[in-house]
Amino acid sequence: MQDNYASLIAQVRAQSPLVHHITNYVTVNDCANITLAIGASPVMADDIGEAADIAAIASALVLNMGTLNERTIASSLAAGKAANAKGVPIVFDPVGAGASRLRNETAARFVSELKLSVLRGNVSEIRCVAGLASSTRGVDASGADASDIDSVAQMAAALATRLGCVVVVSGEVDVIADGTRLLLIENGQIMLTSLTGTGCMCSSLVGSFCGAAGGDYFTAAAGAMLTMGAAGEIAFKNAGALGNGSFHGALHDAISRMDVPTLERMARYREG
Amino acid sequence: MQDNYASLIAQVRAQSPLVHHITNYVTVNDCANITLAIGASPVMADDIGEAADIAAIASALVLNMGTLNERTIASSLAAGKAANAKGVPIVFDPVGAGASRLRNETAARFVSELKLSVLRGNVSEIRCVAGLASSTRGVDASGADASDIDSVAQMAAALATRLGCVVVVSGEVDVIADGTRLLLIENGQIMLTSLTGTGCMCSSLVGSFCGAAGGDYFTAAAGAMLTMGAAGEIAFKNAGALGNGSFHGALHDAISRMDVPTLERMARYREG
Amino acid sequence: MQDNYASLIAQVRAQSPLVHHITNYVTVNDCANITLAIGASPVMADDIGEAADIAAIASALVLNMGTLNERTIASSLAAGKAANAKGVPIVFDPVGAGASRLRNETAARFVSELKLSVLRGNVSEIRCVAGLASSTRGVDASGADASDIDSVAQMAAALATRLGCVVVVSGEVDVIADGTRLLLIENGQIMLTSLTGTGCMCSSLVGSFCGAAGGDYFTAAAGAMLTMGAAGEIAFKNAGALGNGSFHGALHDAISRMDVPTLERMARYREG
Repeated sequence: MQDNYASLIAQVRAQSPLVHHITNYVTVNDCANITLAIGASPVMADDIGEAADIAAIASALVLNMGTLNERTIASSLAAGKAANAKGVPIVFDPVGAGASRLRNETAARFVSELKLSVLRGNVSEIRCVAGLASSTRGVDASGADASDIDSVAQMAAALATRLGCVVVVSGEVDVIADGTRLLLIENGQIMLTSLTGTGCMCSSLVGSFCGAAGGDYFTAAAGAMLTMGAAGEIAFKNAGALGNGSFHGALHDAISRMDVPTLERMARYREG
Repeated sequence: MQDNYASLIAQVRAQSPLVHHITNYVTVNDCANITLAIGASPVMADDIGEAADIAAIASALVLNMGTLNERTIASSLAAGKAANAKGVPIVFDPVGAGASRLRNETAARFVSELKLSVLRGNVSEIRCVAGLASSTRGVDASGADASDIDSVAQMAAALATRLGCVVVVSGEVDVIADGTRLLLIENGQIMLTSLTGTGCMCSSLVGSFCGAAGGDYFTAAAGAMLTMGAAGEIAFKNAGALGNGSFHGALHDAISRMDVPTLERMARYREG
Repeated sequence: MQDNYASLIAQVRAQSPLVHHITNYVTVNDCANITLAIGASPVMADDIGEAADIAAIASALVLNMGTLNERTIASSLAAGKAANAKGVPIVFDPVGAGASRLRNETAARFVSELKLSVLRGNVSEIRCVAGLASSTRGVDASGADASDIDSVAQMAAALATRLGCVVVVSGEVDVIADGTRLLLIENGQIMLTSLTGTGCMCSSLVGSFCGAAGGDYFTAAAGAMLTMGAAGEIAFKNAGALGNGSFHGALHDAISRMDVPTLERMARYREG
C-alpha cells in the first residue's frame, strides 16, 4: 500500500489520544469500549458545566445526536466551540437526521455553528444534512437512498466541499470524500447492521484516528472505516453463525487485536 | 399448533416494524439489540421536542419507567398520546412500581391517561398497578406475591378487563390475560433473573410483535413471551454453565436465530 | 486465611442486599449485571423525586460521578443524606476527579456533605480528593501518580483518617486503608484497564459487600477488591487471548461463579 491508512493504527496505539464523546445512552458503552479497543482513551462528559473544559484538553471530540435533548444540544455546541478554538478535530454523527424536525434542525445547527473535521452517517442522514430528500426511518438508512453509489459519492463530495470537511457515508460501500479526494471502501459485513451502534462505533473510531492523525482527517477517516470493515469480516468469520451476541463480542475482539499488517492485508478500496 | 403465536416471528422479520422506546438507560442497549435480533427496528427518542413525532410514525411504542425522571415522564405521556391518536399500540412496563411513591404515581398516571395495548411486568409491579398490596423490593419481584399462580391469573384477568388491554405477568409461569382469554406459558429459565434487563427485553419483544400483529395484541404478547422463554432455555443449554456473561451473549444469539419451526417445537403453554 | 474477606461472598449471596446506584450511563449495565453476578440486587434510581426514598430502603448506596450533571448531583446528595440518616453505607467513586473544575468541586462537596463508608478510585482521583496535585487525564489514572506504592499507601491512610472512612486506591496493587489497618492486594490483571467500567464495577462490588458486611466496611472493601482481582485473572486465563469482547464476557462469568473456596485459594495480599 502506498498510503498510510493502516499504519495510523500504530499511531493511535502509541499516542492513546483522549477522545471526548457527547453521545447517546443507547450505544455509549460500546463506543467507550471500542475506543479503548483501538488504543485510544474515551471520556464521556455531557454537562454544560464541564463540556467545554473537557473538549479543550481532548485530542478529538465526537458529537453524536442519537438521543439528543435540550441539555446535550447546548453542551455539544459549547464543547464544539471550545474544540474549534483549540483546533481539536470534531467528528459529527447526525444519528437519525431526517426522522424528526428536532433532529433536522439540530443537525443543521451543528453544521452551521461548528467547523467540523469529519461528518459521518448513513446515506439517509447525510442526504438530510445536505438538504436533499431523505427516506430515513428511525435511525436506519433507507435502501432507496443508497441505490446508486456514484450519486452517493457525488453528493458526498459536493457536501464536503461546501462544509470544508471530510464526509463519510457508511453503507455496503463506504464513501469518503473531502472534495478533492474520494475513496470507496469495500470492506464490511452486512451483519453489522443487525447490531445497534455499529455506526456510532465507526464515529468513535474516526475520532480515535483523528486524534492521532496529525491533521490529516481524510486518512484518519479512511483508516477508521477500513478498521471497522475488516473487523466486521473477522467477527463474522469467527462468530457470525453463532448469532448476534457472539458476533457482538467477536467485533470487540477483532478491533482490540487489529494491527497494521492485518489491516494492510485485508483492506479493499479504490479511489474514485 | 392451532394458534399462530410462533408464526408471528416470520411477520416481524418480514415487516421490520419500527419500535419507538422511551426506556431506562440501564438496559437500553440490550433492548435495542434484542429488537434488532428479532427482526424489528428500534428507535430510542425521549426528548419532548420529538417524542410525539417519532411515536406517530412508529409501529409500536414501548414505555419503560426503569429510570424515570421528570423529563422522560412528560415525554412518555406526549409520545403515548400521539400513539393513541394514530392507533399505534403502546406497551407499558412499570419497572419498579411499588418501590417508591414516584413510581406508583407515575404508573397510575400512565394507566389512566393512556390507552394501553399491553401492560407487562413482574407480579409485584402488576399488583401495584392493580392497586393491591405489593412486596416490590427495588426492581425485582417478591416471591411472596407470586406463590399462587391461580390468584395471579385471576388478578391479571380482572386488571385486563378493567384497563381494556392485555396484561402480561412475567414469572416462573408467565400469565397472559385479556379478560376473555388466558394463557399460561411454561417456557423460561430461572437464570434469566440473574441478568439485568430480561424483563425490559421481554417488553421490547412484545413491542416488536405488536408492531407486526395486525391488532391482535394477545397473540403478539404470547409470541413474544414464548420467544423469550424458549431463547432462555437455548441460551442456558449452550452457555449457562459458563456463567452470566456467556449466558448473556447466548441469549442474544438465541433470539437472533429464533424461527417459527424452533418456537413451534419448543413452546409449552396451556390455556387457563 | 485467618480473615474473612472471602467468606463475605457467601453472605452477599445469602442476603442479596439491595444496592442503590446513582451512576453514570456509560457503564451502568455492567454495574447492574456485576451486582447481580455476585448475588446482590441492583436498583438504579436517580430522580430527585425518589432518590432519597430508594436510598432509605437500600442496604448500600453507590454514588458514581462518571457522567455527573446538575440533576444527578442534587439527587446524589439527597440520596446520600437519606442514607446517612438511616445508617446505610455509602460508597463514593469520584470518577474523573481532577479532569474538570466541576468534577473537583463535586467530589469535594460529596466528601464534605456526606459521611462516606468507602471512597474508591484510581490514584489520580484519590489524590485529587485528598487535595494533592493529580495528573488525571480524562477518567484514567496517570502512571506518574502511582509510581511509589508506599507513598500511595501513606496518602490513602492519611485521607482515611481525615474522612473517617475506608479508602480504596485501585491500581496494579490495590491499597485499602482505614487509618488503622492497611491492606495491599496483588490480585488483578492489566487487561482490566482495556475495558471501560472495571473501576465502576469494583465500586458496585464494594457496595454489594458493604450491604452484607454487618458494618465492617474495611473487610467488605477487601473482599470486593479481591473478588474483582481474582475474577480478572480467571477471565484473562480463559479469554484474554481472544480479545476485549471475550474478556468482557469472561469477567462477568468469573464474578458469577466466584465462591469462597476459589477466592480463598487465589487471594494474594499483604498487610501494610
